[in-house]
Amino acid sequence: MNVVPVFNENDAISKGAVQTKENSPKVPFWDNDSLAALLAIELNADLLMLMTDVNGLYTGAPSDPSSKIIHTYCPAIHDPLIKFGQKSGGGRGGMTAKVDAAWLAADAGVTTVIASGKGGDSILQVVSGQLVGTLFSHEGARSFQEQHDRKQAKQKKDKESGASKDAQPASGDETARELAVAARDASRVLQNLSSEEREKILEKVAAELEKHEEQILAENEADVDAAEGKIDDQLMNRLRLKPQKIKQLADGIRSIAKQTEPLRKVLSKMQIADGLVLEKLTSPIGVLLIIFEARPDALPQIAALAIRSGNGLLLKGGKEASRSNALLHKIIVEAVAEAAPSVGKQLISLITTRQGVDDLLKLDDVIDLAIPRGGNALVSHIQHNTRIPVLGHADGICHLYVDARADIEMACSIAVDSKTDYPAACNAVEKILVHSELGRDGRLYQLQTALREAGVTMHGGKRSAKELGLTPCPSDRHEYGTNALTLELVDSMDEAIDHIHANGSSHTECIVTEDEALAEQFLRRVDSACVFHNATTRFADGYRFGLGAEVGISTSRIHARGPVGVEGLLTTKWVMRGKGHTVDHDTSIKYTHKPLPLQ
Amino acid sequence: MNVVPVFNENDAISKGAVQTKENSPKVPFWDNDSLAALLAIELNADLLMLMTDVNGLYTGAPSDPSSKIIHTYCPAIHDPLIKFGQKSGGGRGGMTAKVDAAWLAADAGVTTVIASGKGGDSILQVVSGQLVGTLFSHEGARSFQEQHDRKQAKQKKDKESGASKDAQPASGDETARELAVAARDASRVLQNLSSEEREKILEKVAAELEKHEEQILAENEADVDAAEGKIDDQLMNRLRLKPQKIKQLADGIRSIAKQTEPLRKVLSKMQIADGLVLEKLTSPIGVLLIIFEARPDALPQIAALAIRSGNGLLLKGGKEASRSNALLHKIIVEAVAEAAPSVGKQLISLITTRQGVDDLLKLDDVIDLAIPRGGNALVSHIQHNTRIPVLGHADGICHLYVDARADIEMACSIAVDSKTDYPAACNAVEKILVHSELGRDGRLYQLQTALREAGVTMHGGKRSAKELGLTPCPSDRHEYGTNALTLELVDSMDEAIDHIHANGSSHTECIVTEDEALAEQFLRRVDSACVFHNATTRFADGYRFGLGAEVGISTSRIHARGPVGVEGLLTTKWVMRGKGHTVDHDTSIKYTHKPLPLQ
Repeated sequence: MNVVPVFNENDAISKGAVQTKENSPKVPFWDNDSLAALLAIELNADLLMLMTDVNGLYTGAPSDPSSKIIHTYCPAIHDPLIKFGQKSGGGRGGMTAKVDAAWLAADAGVTTVIASGKGGDSILQVVSGQLVGTLFSHEGARSFQEQHDRKQAKQKKDKESGASKDAQPASGDETARELAVAARDASRVLQNLSSEEREKILEKVAAELEKHEEQILAENEADVDAAEGKIDDQLMNRLRLKPQKIKQLADGIRSIAKQTEPLRKVLSKMQIADGLVLEKLTSPIGVLLIIFEARPDALPQIAALAIRSGNGLLLKGGKEASRSNALLHKIIVEAVAEAAPSVGKQLISLITTRQGVDDLLKLDDVIDLAIPRGGNALVSHIQHNTRIPVLGHADGICHLYVDARADIEMACSIAVDSKTDYPAACNAVEKILVHSELGRDGRLYQLQTALREAGVTMHGGKRSAKELGLTPCPSDRHEYGTNALTLELVDSMDEAIDHIHANGSSHTECIVTEDEALAEQFLRRVDSACVFHNATTRFADGYRFGLGAEVGISTSRIHARGPVGVEGLLTTKWVMRGKGHTVDHDTSIKYTHKPLPLQ
Repeated sequence: MNVVPVFNENDAISKGAVQTKENSPKVPFWDNDSLAALLAIELNADLLMLMTDVNGLYTGAPSDPSSKIIHTYCPAIHDPLIKFGQKSGGGRGGMTAKVDAAWLAADAGVTTVIASGKGGDSILQVVSGQLVGTLFSHEGARSFQEQHDRKQAKQKKDKESGASKDAQPASGDETARELAVAARDASRVLQNLSSEEREKILEKVAAELEKHEEQILAENEADVDAAEGKIDDQLMNRLRLKPQKIKQLADGIRSIAKQTEPLRKVLSKMQIADGLVLEKLTSPIGVLLIIFEARPDALPQIAALAIRSGNGLLLKGGKEASRSNALLHKIIVEAVAEAAPSVGKQLISLITTRQGVDDLLKLDDVIDLAIPRGGNALVSHIQHNTRIPVLGHADGICHLYVDARADIEMACSIAVDSKTDYPAACNAVEKILVHSELGRDGRLYQLQTALREAGVTMHGGKRSAKELGLTPCPSDRHEYGTNALTLELVDSMDEAIDHIHANGSSHTECIVTEDEALAEQFLRRVDSACVFHNATTRFADGYRFGLGAEVGISTSRIHARGPVGVEGLLTTKWVMRGKGHTVDHDTSIKYTHKPLPLQ
């Protein structure tokens, strides 16, 4: 029996052994930590916390600035790396004793965290799931073991087939912050490649995706099988990659490759003074965080846009698509590193560590823009829980105003298309405001009939519920997302605009009228990202707008608004060329501020 | 003696009277609240909190959705408005009794808050200065009284002189949220005026400022007197309006008035399909929050930019400039309302309520962009404490790289200008990286001599501290803000760029070299908002860049970067004109995506 004096001399318990459950063997404990571990196992505890005087387990001495905290401990990775005070002859195991105790508990199924007992916040932080201390978990160990086994099998296979070295998956001790910094460094290399060089990278990515179609579909199939019965049909639909999808993705990437160079485009040029010229150029944003639910197809699309525009990427995919995402990511980073060794594999990282979305959202100092691709709840959560700028939209409460001078055939056709073309889309119409005059001449009846025949359920607003006897709508600001909408009566376009401003989500609104002057008023006065005259709201889309690949649709009012293409991934940079010009309190310089032709 | 049964039947104390201090009269108490008030007065408490079952005092029944919470209670405003349960014959004074008790305490100098006792957080929130509950303060009452008196005197005077109605100052019960919503409504009216109409408003503002020069300077003098000895010289310098400043401000506003229309500028135009045309237009952002320290001159400038670009404004000025700001704000909103009655006085609000900066920073759902105008500490605080996008910069750690092929005369001139032209400016150089070759041929000595003769103190980086014997700099990333800088040696441009990326603030960097090809590399590779060749870093400025009025300098990577002119206050809007076009699963429509000429 290994009995060692306790580390903390203040502790009352010093040595002993406990008899756990009736049938279990007598297990030794050698200090307060191991006693705690045994108790936690016995109690089948949800969590064991071992408090110490440092923030967790480090890759070296905690006092050494080059040491990094390990957030998730894997013995197979970390054992050879870590030196945490050798057990001396007399005992005082220190961190080693704590790690042994933690591993004892974790191995028996009790998740354990070693964290600092100083300050007093860490217990609450750990319990609330924040990334403090070092986590030991049985699951982590098992999944690591699986990963390790698979990797070895793969390496063996690759060796046999002569394939390239395996991609380095982000190991548990690389925090998202480090990955973001590495992505920025890699992006600085990438953005200085020529347009042709970045085109070549994308061609390689497209080719490799096609080459690995079979494996990708197999991994995806495994994800789909695992998700069966756990996610709804809509999510399942997004998760599944259809056989022709890989070809489509590769084609899409080739078309992004061929786009004209988005970088270093001269947006303005001005002579500031004699011999001093200022240019404003397009430039990459830097590091983007993309968070997506299901949809593994979003990964290569977004990666391609990032490569074209010179940006680094952190990707956080949904758990349900983890195998598809892991393989897609691996194929892409290997293709990048092969086509452009100077850029390497850290341009795009898939976050697979313990860090959850909320941990990533705190990295506003190293991430420049967050782009959520998923349902309203995800987007809304992200928008409300980060200081990183977010490109996206939570609601899509689009309005259609049918004016007194509307051509009713056109109104019916646009109304039906706006709702039924894809009822769950953010650009589907949720409310039709009808001028009351249409009620008097039978056109309203025609519109209601057309909608009813198209299978649309109509709810009533405050007025129409009374006057037309419609079932009242849930609220004035409701996104149905189904084949249903609210039909409300108004007496004028002014009333319609006020209603839109009060209840809309500033996404897309449309007027149907033959009165051109009135339509121009509507286009000018309605304060939404997209405002249409005599066209379905469903046109509010990056592809239909001719933007090429779509990054998202933004209802934010800064940076990018409405459907966003690759320009949403760009910022600007000012470049000035002089001949030794100084300011000297603006006395000796004569400003000319003369605009110059861009080319 | 007015004895009323207690409201809360659970309370042990029911009625009585206490004898306060020896000389004070015997003061009655009529329930637990008034007893608490008397005790608070007796103890000379800093704060009295009366806990109840609603969140505070409302303008109507708390259950009525149209009722609003009153954050600061003023009897002269609120008494006639508020109905809070009449005292019934039998007592049970309810909120009335609480208000009476609160006023009793406040009147005697004890600030009192009525807040909810539910949930348990409100005590901490009130103590930490958050905007919860309803505040009663003697100062509030007094300052209201002064305001009221001044307003009456002014009205009397205006009546005599036939002037327009007085501006409505933001009263205590209008929260910043309500002001933001009102500003958005007014901005929607403003943005639909023609360019000429907005020009007319600005001409009126300029004229009124000049007309009131004397009063403005008098109020500013009062601010300066009050601040004497309380603020540092730099802040005092910014606070003081010099006599010619009003004329300058008016001229500046007239030049903003004459700028070409920034709104509804067509940025792109495309035929989407036959008969379907899409345009991307410039559009106002919406509601801006400007927070400025001292600098009352920033108020009219920012207001003019907002009016030109169709935006609404919330202004939060420093306490030290409160009288100057109040008058400037009043003059401007009255001018706006007179020139454009439809816009009214709520386009621009000066926040003078109890709400502090941190309360305003929470309003990310009604404010679109925050622009801090002040010191690094203010900007940094704002950047780290809000989800509202922030336009600005906290640090300005600019670098100058003097290459091996630098013309040393030019390098000396640029180095001296970059530092000494205005050492405290964000675009002043903080670090000069010198190619080590210059040390060998005497050019480094020339540079050091020029800097020393210009009064610049040089500190050493890791290498130069050793090799040149310079006093070590405080850190690799240090903003001196004074006539001092770090001089460091590097062996190549690559090393200089790495150093800049590791330690800079992405603001402005410059290379001095005669090697054009190398300079182009530097301009391309350095990832900062402004990158210059052979020109002082001091050029990084909106006026010098020819942007007209400067909104700020942004080191953010989205929306606007570097010096920002009026375009930083704009977003875009998509406008589409069709002839009944529908999508119908993209089957029946033939996309042409043909770019059209902008005019």
